Amino acid sequence: MADDKKFVQEITSMEEDFAQWYTDIVKKADLIDYSSVKGCMIIRPAGFAIWELIQAELDRRFKETEVSNCYMPLFIPESLLEVEKDHVEGFAPEVAWVTHGGMEPLAERMCVRPTSETLFCDYYNKIVQSYRDLPQVLNQWCSVVRWEKTTRPFLRSREFLWQEGHTAHATQEEAQERTIQMLNVYADFCEECLAIPVIRGQKTEKERFAGAKDTYTIESLMHDGKALQSGTSHNFGDGFARAFKIQYTDKDNKLKYVHQTSWGFTTRMVGGIIMVHGDNSGLKLPPAVAPVQVNIIPVAMHKEGVLEEAKKLLSKLKSAGIRVKLDDSDRSPGFKFSESEMRGIPVRLEIGPKDIEKNQCIVVRRDNFEKQPVGLDNIDVDIKRILENIQKNMYETALKHRDSHTYTALNMEEFEEIINTKPGFIKAMYCGNQDCEDEIKDRTGATARCIPFKQEEISKVCVCCKKPAKQMIYWGRAY
Amino acid sequence: MADDKKFVQEITSMEEDFAQWYTDIVKKADLIDYSSVKGCMIIRPAGFAIWELIQAELDRRFKETEVSNCYMPLFIPESLLEVEKDHVEGFAPEVAWVTHGGMEPLAERMCVRPTSETLFCDYYNKIVQSYRDLPQVLNQWCSVVRWEKTTRPFLRSREFLWQEGHTAHATQEEAQERTIQMLNVYADFCEECLAIPVIRGQKTEKERFAGAKDTYTIESLMHDGKALQSGTSHNFGDGFARAFKIQYTDKDNKLKYVHQTSWGFTTRMVGGIIMVHGDNSGLKLPPAVAPVQVNIIPVAMHKEGVLEEAKKLLSKLKSAGIRVKLDDSDRSPGFKFSESEMRGIPVRLEIGPKDIEKNQCIVVRRDNFEKQPVGLDNIDVDIKRILENIQKNMYETALKHRDSHTYTALNMEEFEEIINTKPGFIKAMYCGNQDCEDEIKDRTGATARCIPFKQEEISKVCVCCKKPAKQMIYWGRAY
Repeated sequence: MADDKKFVQEITSMEEDFAQWYTDIVKKADLIDYSSVKGCMIIRPAGFAIWELIQAELDRRFKETEVSNCYMPLFIPESLLEVEKDHVEGFAPEVAWVTHGGMEPLAERMCVRPTSETLFCDYYNKIVQSYRDLPQVLNQWCSVVRWEKTTRPFLRSREFLWQEGHTAHATQEEAQERTIQMLNVYADFCEECLAIPVIRGQKTEKERFAGAKDTYTIESLMHDGKALQSGTSHNFGDGFARAFKIQYTDKDNKLKYVHQTSWGFTTRMVGGIIMVHGDNSGLKLPPAVAPVQVNIIPVAMHKEGVLEEAKKLLSKLKSAGIRVKLDDSDRSPGFKFSESEMRGIPVRLEIGPKDIEKNQCIVVRRDNFEKQPVGLDNIDVDIKRILENIQKNMYETALKHRDSHTYTALNMEEFEEIINTKPGFIKAMYCGNQDCEDEIKDRTGATARCIPFKQEEISKVCVCCKKPAKQMIYWGRAY
Repeated sequence: MADDKKFVQEITSMEEDFAQWYTDIVKKADLIDYSSVKGCMIIRPAGFAIWELIQAELDRRFKETEVSNCYMPLFIPESLLEVEKDHVEGFAPEVAWVTHGGMEPLAERMCVRPTSETLFCDYYNKIVQSYRDLPQVLNQWCSVVRWEKTTRPFLRSREFLWQEGHTAHATQEEAQERTIQMLNVYADFCEECLAIPVIRGQKTEKERFAGAKDTYTIESLMHDGKALQSGTSHNFGDGFARAFKIQYTDKDNKLKYVHQTSWGFTTRMVGGIIMVHGDNSGLKLPPAVAPVQVNIIPVAMHKEGVLEEAKKLLSKLKSAGIRVKLDDSDRSPGFKFSESEMRGIPVRLEIGPKDIEKNQCIVVRRDNFEKQPVGLDNIDVDIKRILENIQKNMYETALKHRDSHTYTALNMEEFEEIINTKPGFIKAMYCGNQDCEDEIKDRTGATARCIPFKQEEISKVCVCCKKPAKQMIYWGRAY
């Protein structure tokens, strides 16, 4: 059929033009549409369903650590945004301003939240009085707005969806513990559910969040060798507490400042899924966050008994808790196969008259295109096992890719050669002087992705200035 | 203890001042806090958890009817808002306008969405081409902004949370079917989960949504006899489709306009729960949407074995899928009892040394304050049964209240006497002429709440003009 390869043909190959390949998938897998507001995207049902699964599982993991959800206003009065100096400097240049309510100008303009530290601080200032009111461990799922100049679907848009957690604690130790705890929640989630291996570590001072004492990050590597910041967790110390006067009376009857954290995870990780796992046939979804895990495609659908068997299969898999659909539309099987691949559905089940005769169906895996007949009697158990295998295999494939694209550089010549010929992570030693960090960025376009928790001593001296090294850093060009 | 009655004492009685009683509950049950943005509220964890349960259950019911979720931008360019004439007239006076992005003025100002018909239409215009693309049955959970002059927590705020469903269909019949289907989803949800009986019906032309051909509504009665619009579903016919040029090629190869619907349910229903069920001890939550269904309060907590037994109870109930917490804080049992009542927790379980001796605990129901000993062996089964009873009893109590506060008026003298002395719903006949509707509103402050599906012929003539009546209407003063 002429239509059969429609989906495959229209997509640019990733080797030829990675950016265009990405955009093609986003459009052809029906994840995103552009809206009438420049830089704001429409998240279509196929894209949003991935985010819903991410939300549900992350939210479950949050609640296991005693996080409660709440909702803060969308708007921040200008004077409130300005309370913490570093914070306003970081965000004021890129916020959207509301100046009129109805027909009248506002007495004070408000920005649409770019992040909600200031709102949570304002709230904690009111409700925290005693040590009994601590800790406060709150989170909200919402959208935020940052008026970026250049945008890309999922990766950078003027409005995006995220969760932002904001906590207040009696002691610095407890705040630090929560900061690391949430970073680990993100990291485990990425590895276990998104099948994306991450480097856990700390940001350099230069790369810190506006107003934070310390920023921690998880970093992942995309297929093109560029890094993606995949989740951040900040320890604010008592900086915001002092600016917003958030104090509590401790057990010893003394007035003390609280210690705060915040942490966020965004829709950009849907972009991460595309760029870590996708291939030239389209999207490739890890089963854990695949809205449809199994796509049943009847072959010779109008032959007697085929559709009936397909429907039996559907209901058997559904009962087993598998997210399954049956494509009984009037398009050709070939078209459906391509579409199923483009949409990244982990397993496709073909069933036709010959299969029914043999009491089997054909299972085709999206991760490695393996094709095998599987008996119908235990199909639910077998499919579950296959989905688990796919999840595991996708993680291992991504890990292998990352490890084989992680290099070490002992001097700037090596650093530059690697970055220009073999895109990936570069591990290199750093003296801790920001001049070197700046120089590396200027010369190579790479930024310090993180100071990993797992340190290695690659050499004794800084890759740039040759002075004694303080730590090993992962560098890379990043989205 | 002096603290014991803290919660009860500080709340205004509902008979004395219903509005103040409402505000007191909202604050004392920790549902809402006021924010630095006038008219925008902070939904605190105890309030947001109720909304999360509403969301989860409504979303489940939506998906059973083939609804998919998506996400549209927060902003609407002014020119897009203006495409449909009635719609812009209805909303433009009360929107918040964004005029600057970062440091620069925008070429065209945008409003923060007050509702998203225009965005969905713009999207459908792009993606709907053929009959194969229909129906489109989309929904989003988000916040919207309407710059109201006077606000009240949950009931009317400048920003509120809701879901908005927007559908496009090939035929008018199908659009009408979806409109009624979603109204019934809302109605069933209110009755089954919120324990709030509703009147299902149609809005008069005067009360229609801006741009709708027909608006359907469910109306409920609050404890003070005022009505609350509790969910609406609109049939737009092809009005928006013509304005936005949303056309599809039908099977007969002809170009046709789609037919659309929208429907919404908001956080104001948390206010509805308060005003239907609450009493002078505080909030009273129906078990189906109670974040905590059972509160275990140990008595003589520091006596040997008490806390251990309480913890056993906690884990037994948790395993049975009951939302339960154990209050082992260092406050007096009396304080905890009051607090538990204020927060509306359906069941409180007291357990002390004497109970343990008898292998029992004391169960106190929030709905009717019934107190009974219950054996520990089958406590999980018994509590489930009690929760079901509470849910049922709360619905029946609310239904009795509504029915005993529903009156009929045959003429305006009766109408006025009722509305001024016995607040509630008034059933009265209507000629269909808007002059009468206006006159009734002017004279009594009552609005036409709905033309109920279940019609009764109270008399042959209009309550106002005495001309032949067309239909029976529910009237009432409303929130």
